[in-house]
Amino acid sequence: MKQVLLWLLLALPVFAASPEDAIRKVLSDQVAAWNRGDVKAFMDGYENSPATTFVGSTITKGHAAVLERYIEKYPTKEKMGMLTFSGLEIRMLGTDYASVIGHFHLDRTKEAGGEASGIFTLLFKKTAEGWKIIQDHTS
Amino acid sequence: MKQVLLWLLLALPVFAASPEDAIRKVLSDQVAAWNRGDVKAFMDGYENSPATTFVGSTITKGHAAVLERYIEKYPTKEKMGMLTFSGLEIRMLGTDYASVIGHFHLDRTKEAGGEASGIFTLLFKKTAEGWKIIQDHTS
Repeated sequence: MKQVLLWLLLALPVFAASPEDAIRKVLSDQVAAWNRGDVKAFMDGYENSPATTFVGSTITKGHAAVLERYIEKYPTKEKMGMLTFSGLEIRMLGTDYASVIGHFHLDRTKEAGGEASGIFTLLFKKTAEGWKIIQDHTS
Repeated sequence: MKQVLLWLLLALPVFAASPEDAIRKVLSDQVAAWNRGDVKAFMDGYENSPATTFVGSTITKGHAAVLERYIEKYPTKEKMGMLTFSGLEIRMLGTDYASVIGHFHLDRTKEAGGEASGIFTLLFKKTAEGWKIIQDHTS
């Protein structure tokens, strides 16, 4: 009996994590990674796939190319600034996909490029490695 | 036997339409509607739902609000110009959802606002009324 209770207690967080919670965790992990200047850890939020797509003013395809774009655009911790996400709206698309809308804000010195903000729409997929972003449209 | 063959022949187009074909048809119908100045028919491509979302510089929510935005921004056939879509990429998200990336171009006189172009990402859902756009991010 005690063992069963212990098992239930340990298993609880696993059962409690809804897809929405898991997705919010991916995004908060991304923000934490960004704000310590770790672009590679930030990129863990995206599926490690050649199909992973970033849409900005142009279309960038593939996890490696998206990482390269971030490194080029944000080469230093100063240029990365302090990132916050707000107004997150998650919509499940069946059981294995989800859409997220949100706002981003980049707090940054004038010398590093100044403040920036905008809207993003993300597509998430439930993969063997957890929920991952397969498409990001930021404007 | 003749009746069976006739039935098969009539039913063929229904069976032949893949989700990709059906989605391309929605988009080509939208372009045709736009280019004859019929914003309401253009809006038939979007799901008639309060959840239907358009993301531009701001977030517009609801089929009625999205229609209103189009009417405000494109009040005349001249301001609507001639629309073309290109480079469409369709990715199925399970069986009932799909993601579409594409480029739009608006050919328009200088007086009507000039040419415009950009990238859109759409989310499609298979509904009882066919494949419909549930989210549009255009930048």
